[in-house]
Parts: sequence; structure tokens; C-alpha cells
Amino acid sequence: MAEETVGTGLEEPAYLTGVVDLLGALAHGELSAFERLAEDAVSAPTLRDKAELAAMAAAEFGHFARLRDHLGSLGVDPYAAMEPFHATFDNFHAHTAPADWPESLVKAYVGDGLAADFYREVAAYLDPGTRELILATLADTGHSEFVVSRVREIIAEQPAVGGRLALWGRRLVGEALSQAQVVVAERDALSSLLAGGVDRPGMDLASIGRMFARLTENHAGRMARLGLSP
Amino acid sequence: MAEETVGTGLEEPAYLTGVVDLLGALAHGELSAFERLAEDAVSAPTLRDKAELAAMAAAEFGHFARLRDHLGSLGVDPYAAMEPFHATFDNFHAHTAPADWPESLVKAYVGDGLAADFYREVAAYLDPGTRELILATLADTGHSEFVVSRVREIIAEQPAVGGRLALWGRRLVGEALSQAQVVVAERDALSSLLAGGVDRPGMDLASIGRMFARLTENHAGRMARLGLSP
Repeated sequence: MAEETVGTGLEEPAYLTGVVDLLGALAHGELSAFERLAEDAVSAPTLRDKAELAAMAAAEFGHFARLRDHLGSLGVDPYAAMEPFHATFDNFHAHTAPADWPESLVKAYVGDGLAADFYREVAAYLDPGTRELILATLADTGHSEFVVSRVREIIAEQPAVGGRLALWGRRLVGEALSQAQVVVAERDALSSLLAGGVDRPGMDLASIGRMFARLTENHAGRMARLGLSP
Repeated sequence: MAEETVGTGLEEPAYLTGVVDLLGALAHGELSAFERLAEDAVSAPTLRDKAELAAMAAAEFGHFARLRDHLGSLGVDPYAAMEPFHATFDNFHAHTAPADWPESLVKAYVGDGLAADFYREVAAYLDPGTRELILATLADTGHSEFVVSRVREIIAEQPAVGGRLALWGRRLVGEALSQAQVVVAERDALSSLLAGGVDRPGMDLASIGRMFARLTENHAGRMARLGLSP
């Protein structure tokens, strides 16, 4: 066992396995987000737009590198920890490939926000060290303002686009929840982590319900900030 | 005129225009490199390979951000300064799209090395502030080792690939020189910058010849490190 795990709850094998699964999923999500944002930057209409999306991609890479190094410090091969989530993120991105630049912007904002909310919810049930790592990883990188103002500009110029983007936002959430559900169903270590243990609180059905209510509410808030009906 | 330009030579309009052109070209090159490396990361055979190429892309973005902010501090719109070089980098990348992962690796290493050498040569003729900015931007980000060992592994496993990659390296240099030549021919400010001024040394034909000799020699050294004939 690596030095860092002593006295943090991580010395319990089942808990450690769950945390490694969670961080592996998060790391894979960040690396996938880097890839897709960089890909979307290609379709940016101006150099400035391209640079802004590239900045978001580079920030996601920074998050990934931090999670990867932390997994390494737990004595784990980070790439092996990420591997089980390959299909999940591939499927998510295959089902939510933006058709154009406005869809790329909405996906960057809504997808990032939803993922961050979800991981923050889960972090509340973890040991302080892991929680702080996750919260630091998810810290806002300050690019949201750019996306919000660009989407609002686009809708002001072409009001019809607003309706399509509102549907797009709903599709993104639906796909994200459906993939999250597959992951929890398939990964025992992860569902055990969320369920808690004898001396560790977890989520029961009622708290899962409240979590989904909060996620949905925050999503609606983000759509409203973009000027879209939720 | 911005505060930063006083007493650096940048108060001479022709010199400032040339420096802005050079930094605009460099900034565009870094942003294009980010895009292409991120694109190439998609075809990486393993998550580890993907992460290594993504790290190189993120480093290029960091360089770009630094140049963009410096152009801003000169009182210049960085995106306007970059715009004239759009076609050059588009053409270069369109003519050198890697057919597979080994070609991506060689392009990352050879292209990055050649560009860095060229900008270092030019930096020698500039005011100290601009020179230091360029040298800091080009500082090795420590990812070369990864590319070298991966390319050597690939050639050891499939010796036939070595011949194809050697040709590929030659094509990359040819395209880079041909694009560089178009830029210098089209951008008067840039060619004046390189030619020097009354109180500022520049490149004459002999020094241009020596520069090309050094660029070619360094390129051959890089090919040798990859295990490829130059």
C-alpha cells in the first residue's frame, strides 16, 4: 500500500477500489473532454473562438494530469484505472457529436457543468484528501463567461437556433444520465462506494433522488443563463 | 504606443511591425500545432500514448497564450496579427496530414524541432525582450524522450516502417521550407525585419546560407535520434 493511503480510509481495500474506479472514470472523462473540445475548436468561426475553446481543452488536460498523478501516488497504474470507462465516454461522445459550432459551445458548457455537479455530489461521501482533489480538479477555469456570451449572441442573431439548442441541451443530459446509469450498474466497486459502508455514510434511494433533483435544477439554471428553455 | 515598447527598439514603427508579424506567425503556429497534436492524439493506440500527445498539445497552447498576451501588451490585437498566416499553416498541415500514428509522432518531433530552430535563429536578431519571450516560448517541454522511444520501438517491431518514415521526415522539411519561403516573400515587414536596419544587424545572403546549413544539420540529428536516415 502506498504511504499516502494510511489513515484516510483508503487502507480499506473495497473503499480504495471504489475510489480508484471513481478517479479512473473522472480522469478518462477529462481526457475525453480535452479531445472533444480540441476537435470542436477546429470548427470555430474565428481565431479568438478557437483560442477560447482550446483554452478550455488545455484546462481539462491539466485536470487529467492531476488525477493521473494522484492515481500514480496511490500505487495504481492510472491508465489501467481509466480503461474500464473507455466505452462509456466513447458512446457518450459518439451519441452527442455536435453538428455545428453553437452545439459545440452548448455541449462544452452544459456537459462540463453537469459532470462537475455530479462529481461534487459524489465527493461529499469520500475521505477529505480525495474530496479536496476532486473539488480542486473541478474548480471553474473561468471560461464559462465566454461560452455564455457567445451563445447569447448567436441566439440574438438567429432566434430559430434557440429552439434547436434547447432540444440539444435536453439530449446531452439524457445521454449523460443514461451512460452514468450503465457505469454504476456495471461497476460493483463504484456502486458500493456510493452505497457507503458500516462506518461510512452513503447514498440511499432518497438521497439519490434528492441528488437528481439538484442536478436537474442546476442544469435548468445553466440553460437559462444561455438564454435557452430547459 | 504601449509603455512596454519604450527604449527597446520597438518604438521604431517598421521594426515594431516586423516583430508583430513574427510573433503573430509564431502564435498562429503554436495554436495550429495545438490543434493538430490534439487531432493526432485521437489516433493514439493506447491511453498512455494519447495522454503524451495531449500533453504536447496542451504545452503548445501554453506557448500560444503567452505570445497572445505579449502581443496584447504591445497594444496590438493578437488575432489580427495572427490572421495573415492562416493560409500558410492551413496549407502546411493540409499537405502533411499524418496517415497513421507513427507519422503523427515523427511530425510532432521533427516539425516542432524545425520550427523551434528557425525561431531561435531569427530571435538572435531581435531586441532582448522579444528574444527572451521567444526563447522561453520554445523551451523544451520535455516530451521529446517519449516520441523518440516510441518511434524506435515501432521501427524495431516493423523495420519496413523506417523507410517510409525517413521519406516522411524529408517531406515535412520540404513543406516547411516551402511555406516559410512564401511567408517571407509575401510579408514585407517580416523580410525587412530579417534584413536588419541602419543601426540593427540583419541577415545577408551568406548568413541565410549558414542558417539553412544549421537547420539541415539539426534536422539530420533529430532523424538520427529517431533511428531514421535523414
